[in-house]
Amino acid sequence: MSGDYLFNAWYAAAACTDVAPGPTARTLLEQRLVLFRTEAGQVAALRDRCPHRFAPLSQGPVHGDTLACPYHGMRFGADGRCTRIPGQDRIPDAARVDAFPVIEAYGLVFVWMGDPALADPAALTAIAPYGQPGWGVSRGYDLFQACWQNIADNLIDPAHTSFVHQRTIGNDAGDDVRVTATEEGDVIRCGRWVDNAPPVPVVRRYTGLQGLVDRWQFYHYRLPGTTWVDFGAFEAGRPHTPEEQDRAPYRVLSYAFLTPCTRDSTHYFSLQLRNFAADDEATTREFEALYKLTFDEDKVLLEAIQREENAHPDLTPMRIASDTGVVRLRRRLAECLAAERAHAERPHTHTG
Amino acid sequence: MSGDYLFNAWYAAAACTDVAPGPTARTLLEQRLVLFRTEAGQVAALRDRCPHRFAPLSQGPVHGDTLACPYHGMRFGADGRCTRIPGQDRIPDAARVDAFPVIEAYGLVFVWMGDPALADPAALTAIAPYGQPGWGVSRGYDLFQACWQNIADNLIDPAHTSFVHQRTIGNDAGDDVRVTATEEGDVIRCGRWVDNAPPVPVVRRYTGLQGLVDRWQFYHYRLPGTTWVDFGAFEAGRPHTPEEQDRAPYRVLSYAFLTPCTRDSTHYFSLQLRNFAADDEATTREFEALYKLTFDEDKVLLEAIQREENAHPDLTPMRIASDTGVVRLRRRLAECLAAERAHAERPHTHTG
Amino acid sequence: MSGDYLFNAWYAAAACTDVAPGPTARTLLEQRLVLFRTEAGQVAALRDRCPHRFAPLSQGPVHGDTLACPYHGMRFGADGRCTRIPGQDRIPDAARVDAFPVIEAYGLVFVWMGDPALADPAALTAIAPYGQPGWGVSRGYDLFQACWQNIADNLIDPAHTSFVHQRTIGNDAGDDVRVTATEEGDVIRCGRWVDNAPPVPVVRRYTGLQGLVDRWQFYHYRLPGTTWVDFGAFEAGRPHTPEEQDRAPYRVLSYAFLTPCTRDSTHYFSLQLRNFAADDEATTREFEALYKLTFDEDKVLLEAIQREENAHPDLTPMRIASDTGVVRLRRRLAECLAAERAHAERPHTHTG
Repeated sequence: MSGDYLFNAWYAAAACTDVAPGPTARTLLEQRLVLFRTEAGQVAALRDRCPHRFAPLSQGPVHGDTLACPYHGMRFGADGRCTRIPGQDRIPDAARVDAFPVIEAYGLVFVWMGDPALADPAALTAIAPYGQPGWGVSRGYDLFQACWQNIADNLIDPAHTSFVHQRTIGNDAGDDVRVTATEEGDVIRCGRWVDNAPPVPVVRRYTGLQGLVDRWQFYHYRLPGTTWVDFGAFEAGRPHTPEEQDRAPYRVLSYAFLTPCTRDSTHYFSLQLRNFAADDEATTREFEALYKLTFDEDKVLLEAIQREENAHPDLTPMRIASDTGVVRLRRRLAECLAAERAHAERPHTHTG
Repeated sequence: MSGDYLFNAWYAAAACTDVAPGPTARTLLEQRLVLFRTEAGQVAALRDRCPHRFAPLSQGPVHGDTLACPYHGMRFGADGRCTRIPGQDRIPDAARVDAFPVIEAYGLVFVWMGDPALADPAALTAIAPYGQPGWGVSRGYDLFQACWQNIADNLIDPAHTSFVHQRTIGNDAGDDVRVTATEEGDVIRCGRWVDNAPPVPVVRRYTGLQGLVDRWQFYHYRLPGTTWVDFGAFEAGRPHTPEEQDRAPYRVLSYAFLTPCTRDSTHYFSLQLRNFAADDEATTREFEALYKLTFDEDKVLLEAIQREENAHPDLTPMRIASDTGVVRLRRRLAECLAAERAHAERPHTHTG
Repeated sequence: MSGDYLFNAWYAAAACTDVAPGPTARTLLEQRLVLFRTEAGQVAALRDRCPHRFAPLSQGPVHGDTLACPYHGMRFGADGRCTRIPGQDRIPDAARVDAFPVIEAYGLVFVWMGDPALADPAALTAIAPYGQPGWGVSRGYDLFQACWQNIADNLIDPAHTSFVHQRTIGNDAGDDVRVTATEEGDVIRCGRWVDNAPPVPVVRRYTGLQGLVDRWQFYHYRLPGTTWVDFGAFEAGRPHTPEEQDRAPYRVLSYAFLTPCTRDSTHYFSLQLRNFAADDEATTREFEALYKLTFDEDKVLLEAIQREENAHPDLTPMRIASDTGVVRLRRRLAECLAAERAHAERPHTHTG
């Protein structure tokens, strides 16, 4: 399944801070891009290959609103058109590179990898609490040597936390509690309540709760690569209502943005919103370390699985009850891929 | 020729000490296995791949007599059957992994890679002096980046020692002495006496002999991967009889157990039995270092040959007189491969 | 295009100092060779593969005028014939390895990779000032992970210096000055004068010139891999005549000898002749460092281009005006390849 990409979507490509001031190379969906900022501060995304001799533009200098090829100095604007060829007056029409729509949000640069005419900022997933008082923010990034679909499986799968993440967000208490999945619009949701259980390590650390708690973990997935986990806990026995969840001493909305790099590697951008110690820098650093530890636990497994699948391409997973979210996600993905391909093959009057 | 395996055999997979207490991953004949010990202390060998999502069981914890998948906690017994699926009551029949027969001997774990119904402990090569008084034991392990057949050639070839191993077990004296090969049952034997020659470095070091010696080196091979060299020396002129060999001041039985890892890499387990300083730990350590040096000399050459053969798959060796053992071994291997394949294709009522 | 080799040519294979005293392995045109010196001091070049078991002869010892295989001691002379097989009296005719014609010149060992009957020392490019009073010599070597044709492009391309080499041999002044190309015999020449311009860093450093200068850079290419740049500068306004160039305070003849190693890697031997501080060792060391810096700037780009071409084998370069030398070179190469292939297919009575 690796290599099956949905193109018409916003993909996280970089942290905003990565793109200032110079050019930054990123491989997205097997395509090498370069990001740079124009004088007005806008991020431009171009194919990272000079049409002349294929040198990487990302190794060249920015001149005003253009990026120059490091080899022979040809310059390209944010729209991909060449504005200068040293030693030559006429600039032929072929002297251009592909340009990709870009938006910045949540501290990240998102790039539209499909038909530019379809790029719509409203298609970006809204994150309501982001930037609101009372919510602290931590961030992470890693490159996983695993295809994006296998990582996606992991992010619609609450059951694995009891086995993989006992050092942070899981413990034995949840290991036999069933998960249920639902779909609302284009969001798949899979989760469970684990009641009357000892608090998991992170809850213990940040709330001081020692007694039994009710804990929830609801995993959300919006294709192709936007995912979030609503995770929290309060004293056992309180009603399981949204209002009580809003008042919980521990609640974290953990976002992950998956962007395929190559067939077998994936950019994993993450963002954690926590409802406590919002402005405490030490807690932010600690959260970044804790989530790195947690994601590394997934990474080791997902990379081992990827190697095994690469060595044995004909393996078929044996489905178990806790795969309910995964099964919905894979079915939805197949539908979306079919729809995008059907759209791409339809005759149309694209002018982008 | 790389990749031609005989499956119905005991293959050395690990040192016994490697398998306690936790699981150990090993690739044998291109198959990834995991070894672990049950509560009773018996070694189990399973395919190292959970049937659910292909995670490596070798990264999971042992629970009693079962090994648990690190991803979702499915547990498997020594027979490969699943005993628990968290969050699910029914355990389907498909929830199992392949299990392989195992025996421990000579400090090594041997795994039967072929038809389990044919696994017979008596098929293991007997090592009579092992554990007997008067015989010291040293051990080694390395992974050679060379196919097992090329290493096998080296282990039925006394002639190379005069050129490759001048620092330890060879010297110029033997370089033009012919070797002869014989076959007894399923053992190929190739060797020679080098008479009236200065002692090679190891003999000099451990016997104090300064004058001329008669030295023997007889290489034995039992397919697919059990090999031993009977190597010794005494004062020149003593009769060349088994009785005199038993009384020699220097005699080493050097066993090597070859187990294909991948097509181009091979586990090389070794065991040296020496008839002197049997219980001297310092001598044991020194022997391990000496044999490591010796095998490293082979390794450098065998890995270079492998790279050359991989780059030029159509090369055909030019045979010379000293290849007499190699030629017999390769012919015998072809016969055994044909026999095993004929057996595998025969209709039978295998129930394993 | 990578992998298209002209065989009938002298290829730089090593520095003369690399070949004394022991054997040295070199891969040329995807073929592994070994160089060694006979007792008379002549360099021999053999295929680095024993015909017996394909061991690398380059790991064996030199015995007199022969090189011995490290595995079983077979010995080969400079003509490739086997002179000894230990343990065997008769030496069959098949016991030989390919031998290649060799000459030493300019401190380098050149090997003829094609039909030995065509090997002609006169085919080596003459370097008139080499060894003449007043000319200092510096040298360099590196292995580029790029196909030889792409490096060749770079060496018939004066235009790139304004963008790639601003730290040493280029500056902004030249960036828009056109280049012109001519062909004289089998030499392609491409260059330009950049007049009334600030001196580039190396000229500033070694002449003390601060005011405007006229600078020339003429790139020469003789297929398959001999290239030189005639580069110099003098005070702006002096006549552009050979006599004035001979009197310039700064002139460097920078030779590069390209020898394909594999399809995607190339030996890059270089030699710089300078017309000042001829015998000053410190200047020689500094020149070697400066040219290493300069070539490293090319290397980074050429290796990035190679990776891009490997990932996208169907890309076609967009030609620009400054490619005039490159276009001639590629056309000439196609002609030479066709001629050599036609010659090879012609019936002939080759006895080498």
